[in-house]
Amino acid sequence: MDKPAETSVPVSDVIARRWSPRAYDEKAAVTEEQLRAILEAARWAASAGNTQPARYLVGRRGDETYKKILGTLEEGNQAWAHRASVLLIALTVTKNEKGQIYHAEYGLGLASQNLVLQAVHEGLIAHQMAGFSPEGVTEAFGLPDDVVPRVAIAVGKQAPADVLGDDRSVQRELAPRVRIPLSEYALSQWGTPAFKS
Amino acid sequence: MDKPAETSVPVSDVIARRWSPRAYDEKAAVTEEQLRAILEAARWAASAGNTQPARYLVGRRGDETYKKILGTLEEGNQAWAHRASVLLIALTVTKNEKGQIYHAEYGLGLASQNLVLQAVHEGLIAHQMAGFSPEGVTEAFGLPDDVVPRVAIAVGKQAPADVLGDDRSVQRELAPRVRIPLSEYALSQWGTPAFKS
Repeated sequence: MDKPAETSVPVSDVIARRWSPRAYDEKAAVTEEQLRAILEAARWAASAGNTQPARYLVGRRGDETYKKILGTLEEGNQAWAHRASVLLIALTVTKNEKGQIYHAEYGLGLASQNLVLQAVHEGLIAHQMAGFSPEGVTEAFGLPDDVVPRVAIAVGKQAPADVLGDDRSVQRELAPRVRIPLSEYALSQWGTPAFKS
Repeated sequence: MDKPAETSVPVSDVIARRWSPRAYDEKAAVTEEQLRAILEAARWAASAGNTQPARYLVGRRGDETYKKILGTLEEGNQAWAHRASVLLIALTVTKNEKGQIYHAEYGLGLASQNLVLQAVHEGLIAHQMAGFSPEGVTEAFGLPDDVVPRVAIAVGKQAPADVLGDDRSVQRELAPRVRIPLSEYALSQWGTPAFKS
């Protein structure tokens, strides 16, 4: 099932086709080459002064890392994310030898967008989650103080919405994607659209 | 001039080719359709709970918005960014009717990565800058308290490195891109690479 972005002019296919499904094929495999490609894509994102604040914990279905990550997800996310082939935690490194890393969370966002777009490029789907326990990740992985678990990400192959089981979850999966209009998003002045109509 | 990312497996062409040049063609035009496409790409990025914290101020060469943005850049950035066809400010909306927006800076990063990748897709280049005055932007555009200028972005067409003039700037433009190795970036445990070799 596709939910391409509704745009006033065409945009790159992977950008238009990326969304955040919850229906994963629990039997599908992500190849090592695919998994490596999505991490390579993230690694080459920009960051302020090339400080490279992003790191990823990578769990493959069945391994210890996957189990630990799954265990830190909120119940509502565990309910569907357990079908994903791969579970990741996006980590922010907040300090380096020069002190605090600025724009670290922004930089992590740049890297994660590369990651999810590369997943789409590989024929996979990805879903980022705020709903997990950062403290649980820190404890489970023994992370140092200057490394902050920020976002969990499920990656795998898409399945029909009905794998989600209950009607409410299926309806949510099928619902249209919505965004504020471009006229409120791209501005010449605060409150003034940058584009006519 | 290209500086494709050095990856152990192939990644999407636009992701591999994106970097942050400073040599812009000061006579080149970005079409309205191209400009609209890069903002549309940003608009459709994911955000936590679809809170959509990103907004962009859009300046076209010669207009008031462009002049104001250029005036807020640090001198070292003005020196090259004045040749860009478009100057943007990426803004974070920090609150909505439910209170604080969480993961707002991360969400802005997701949107900006879409933006810069769409620029590459359009045959353009983009360069994100932390070196500008957020206070200057807030004042020049009369932004409300809950809107934070976070990053400036130059967009345009690439020019040969020698437009930068001085040797040091040209050398910086020609220098190779560097990243930490994948073995330190993608981890199974803290300190343990997720991929063999």
